[in-house]
Amino acid sequence: MKRLILITLLIFLFSNSLPAQDRKLVVSLSNPVEKWDIYEVTIPGPPRLLVPLPRLASGDAGAGEDKSGGNPFIDIELSAIFTNDDRTVEADGFYDGNDTFKIRFMPDREGLWTFKTKSNRDELNDKEGQFVCNAASPDNHGPVRVRNQYHFAYEDGTPFFLFGTTIYEWPFQPQEKKQETIETLKSSPFNKARFLVVPPWRKEYVEGPEALDCFPFEGTSKENWDFSKFNPVYFQRLEQCVLQLRDIGIQADLILFRPYDKGKWGFDTMDAETNDRFVRYVVARFAAFRNVWWSLANENSFMKHLTDADWDRLFQLVQAKDPYGHLRSIHNADRLYDYSKPWVTHVSLQYYNAVRALGVSPLLRDIYKKPIVHDEINYEGNIDKRWGQLTGEEMVYRFWVAYVGGAYATHGETSRGQPYGDGWISTGGKLVRESPARIAYLRKIVEDGPEGGLNPLDQYYLRNAVGKYGEYYLYYFGKEEPREWKFRLPDEALKEGMRFKVDLIDTWNMTETAIEQVFEVEKLDRYEYIDKKRSKIQLPGKPYMALRICRVK
Amino acid sequence: MKRLILITLLIFLFSNSLPAQDRKLVVSLSNPVEKWDIYEVTIPGPPRLLVPLPRLASGDAGAGEDKSGGNPFIDIELSAIFTNDDRTVEADGFYDGNDTFKIRFMPDREGLWTFKTKSNRDELNDKEGQFVCNAASPDNHGPVRVRNQYHFAYEDGTPFFLFGTTIYEWPFQPQEKKQETIETLKSSPFNKARFLVVPPWRKEYVEGPEALDCFPFEGTSKENWDFSKFNPVYFQRLEQCVLQLRDIGIQADLILFRPYDKGKWGFDTMDAETNDRFVRYVVARFAAFRNVWWSLANENSFMKHLTDADWDRLFQLVQAKDPYGHLRSIHNADRLYDYSKPWVTHVSLQYYNAVRALGVSPLLRDIYKKPIVHDEINYEGNIDKRWGQLTGEEMVYRFWVAYVGGAYATHGETSRGQPYGDGWISTGGKLVRESPARIAYLRKIVEDGPEGGLNPLDQYYLRNAVGKYGEYYLYYFGKEEPREWKFRLPDEALKEGMRFKVDLIDTWNMTETAIEQVFEVEKLDRYEYIDKKRSKIQLPGKPYMALRICRVK
Repeated sequence: MKRLILITLLIFLFSNSLPAQDRKLVVSLSNPVEKWDIYEVTIPGPPRLLVPLPRLASGDAGAGEDKSGGNPFIDIELSAIFTNDDRTVEADGFYDGNDTFKIRFMPDREGLWTFKTKSNRDELNDKEGQFVCNAASPDNHGPVRVRNQYHFAYEDGTPFFLFGTTIYEWPFQPQEKKQETIETLKSSPFNKARFLVVPPWRKEYVEGPEALDCFPFEGTSKENWDFSKFNPVYFQRLEQCVLQLRDIGIQADLILFRPYDKGKWGFDTMDAETNDRFVRYVVARFAAFRNVWWSLANENSFMKHLTDADWDRLFQLVQAKDPYGHLRSIHNADRLYDYSKPWVTHVSLQYYNAVRALGVSPLLRDIYKKPIVHDEINYEGNIDKRWGQLTGEEMVYRFWVAYVGGAYATHGETSRGQPYGDGWISTGGKLVRESPARIAYLRKIVEDGPEGGLNPLDQYYLRNAVGKYGEYYLYYFGKEEPREWKFRLPDEALKEGMRFKVDLIDTWNMTETAIEQVFEVEKLDRYEYIDKKRSKIQLPGKPYMALRICRVK
Repeated sequence: MKRLILITLLIFLFSNSLPAQDRKLVVSLSNPVEKWDIYEVTIPGPPRLLVPLPRLASGDAGAGEDKSGGNPFIDIELSAIFTNDDRTVEADGFYDGNDTFKIRFMPDREGLWTFKTKSNRDELNDKEGQFVCNAASPDNHGPVRVRNQYHFAYEDGTPFFLFGTTIYEWPFQPQEKKQETIETLKSSPFNKARFLVVPPWRKEYVEGPEALDCFPFEGTSKENWDFSKFNPVYFQRLEQCVLQLRDIGIQADLILFRPYDKGKWGFDTMDAETNDRFVRYVVARFAAFRNVWWSLANENSFMKHLTDADWDRLFQLVQAKDPYGHLRSIHNADRLYDYSKPWVTHVSLQYYNAVRALGVSPLLRDIYKKPIVHDEINYEGNIDKRWGQLTGEEMVYRFWVAYVGGAYATHGETSRGQPYGDGWISTGGKLVRESPARIAYLRKIVEDGPEGGLNPLDQYYLRNAVGKYGEYYLYYFGKEEPREWKFRLPDEALKEGMRFKVDLIDTWNMTETAIEQVFEVEKLDRYEYIDKKRSKIQLPGKPYMALRICRVK
């Protein structure tokens, strides 16, 4: 929060009756904003703004229609064009309640920016202003992008080695619980959190001490939702959650739709027009937050009324409305969306068996030609549902299988006997299980590895090697319990006489032991180089061991 | 051959100078043809047909242009529309050399068919005829189609359980060798053969006793190919190979392009116009053969000048020109084509690691939503290239992994020390290794299994079970060596009291042993049913064992 700069411009509205040239706005230059931070234009709306409008063809204001004026969520169009030299960005505005409209913008260049609004209402149209964008502060690297086809980096080029976790409902918890989650995350290995924009239906969210007082739409239950009107307070709270994550360096993987209403609320059965309006509103509010990722859905195919054509449309809507190109994917249930489609930036997969065997992630990379994120690989814990019963060893094993396949993974943990939900993955709180420490250890190994990311080596034959040819090799033995390993490397990029050192890594006990030997290679055959002395490395005959082999220059 | 009916219609050409209504052809009704066999219209071309033509815009007849007339491979368009009641099919014709044009047609309905030709040459235009199509003979089930999304069947509905093999260059071998291959295949388990339409460059095909006397294009070497003129004799010989396969019940998976010229012939670096003409010619000649499958390429990405956009175009050309919709796929090297594209009927994959671990084929089914054929999984044999060194056990294991994933696989075997090539996969001949007998055993199990094909069971958790819920379960233990298996089944389609019998299968030794017990199930938990007596089945502690569990009614 301390680095949050929300700049409020007070805009003096001129009467609609003035000649057009006088209605141009002169705005005061407020605080400068730093690169990739949020510049926010606030336009106090009327009551008088919302004078009766001719009914628009597309506008069905629904049951809650304000008879004294239009529905500001439907009838009013507002955006602004932001300009810096030759760069022009259009960002949509949104109605934030209390007769206030906002337009948020994330500048990606230092220097002077100007802007001018566009609206179908004269009172909001052609307003102008300018501001200065300064350099980013040291911890601000911009939004995360795909880099090197299969990996990620912040926009300033800093590599982003993804280590995800899952806290589906944390934004809907009491304040203390949310704060506890933030404190837990601060000392965790995780730098991306998956969570829902709309809570699942739960009895406890409807009645009792945890009952929610706030929903994405106006209303309190299925009986009285007004799907034509959003509840700005709901989204303001959600924004605070995204900002809290941003301020501790965590990407917010926002899940827009989910199928968890059990017929009670109906947020998972809304029609196409409502879904589209919801997407536009969320994108208008959240796109300027640099740590946002768009996850179109959790378990999308469980929303039976939505076809892949619907998801195509929603993806393209997000892509069209988000001026910054935040990462976009979708999380599957029993029907896989085609991640090859051009609007999908990376694969967000729930396919447990893909991290139960080495060699599968390289295949997924080859199929989709995009970063592979195993975003649900079952959870460590002890609930009675089989998707939440992994041992710590198994969770850590699946993480290693993912990264040794040139992919990324997302953690979660469960606990039985909670007041409601399944523990961390539902409500956040504290991490109590065994895998996070080992995932932190893996993260350190990955971050100390090749700057360009780990890529599979000799991948049509090997299944357990990742790294960078000629420089860095990470071999992982998983559940095998080898007692020795004959030093040999795939031939690519090798030359006779190159020298390597080796560390033996115990991925579970988090120890590394340098092998007391330098290995000098010579060509064995058309496929491999081998140590000149035909050395074998002794291994302890335990599972979950790895070897890190680095070139000595 | 004995079931081949090639009907030659002698067509009496009327002079171009007659009035239009008199130029209609009256043809004699020749032999009837059986359903899904080939009805062939032969039109003796001139010399006088090939009178000089005005040069067509698209026609570059190349170096070998016949100055006395047009180039019949380029300048003459010919097709015929075949009609039976409301069904109309247009099939392209082709120039078959010796002043002869042909149009081949595969009728798919019994009854009277009529046809009428279309051509840009009056002498070939508006010729009409008719013939009767009779019922198919007992061994003729029509072309193979996709059925049940992930499986295949002949057009008459008979299931086709694919068991492939690889004989890349068999059509280019001496007659005795080809006959030996046919004899071998007759007693093999294989019902699909992958082979090349154009041989790879080999020294032995250029000089010495095995030198080829015949190439797809006019000419004898890179110095004198005339890419504007096909060599009909070359294709006539290839057709005999396809017919020989058809007559022993084997699908011919024709590989149209391949990257194996090493700069010597240039068939793998032809330009787009030549490639397209080649595709049209091959399709016009071969589409009426019911056992044809189209494989656009072997290791397509090794033809560096061809992009995925080129393959898109070639696929669509095959699709447009083949009136019968034969199966279409492409075989990859290091860049996977997107098999999701609508013109791809099934996945033809070279990805060894996808058959080295259970559970991958179900993922591929979910990704592509089409039949998965592991068309290259390495070969059993002993050559010094690592792709041809599998043990028999490993080949059979990979087959089982494929089928227990609800997929299909293709065999190949190699032998070192051949006069040229790598043994069976290159030249055909005899099968000498250990896997074919075990593949035959697997084929019998598959064919005795569910008529609808083997589908993965409880596939997000189990990796080794395939079958049909409630009726048939095949569990495969691969390289594990279990000593017991607790009887339990995923809950879908089960009810308390259902009874099952079990066979223990040794997939390598090809034995099956009935377990002397009937298992009656009761519900264990939300996921499984279990034997009421909590029985455990004893297993021999050896690899490559399976259990077949069938409902007793």
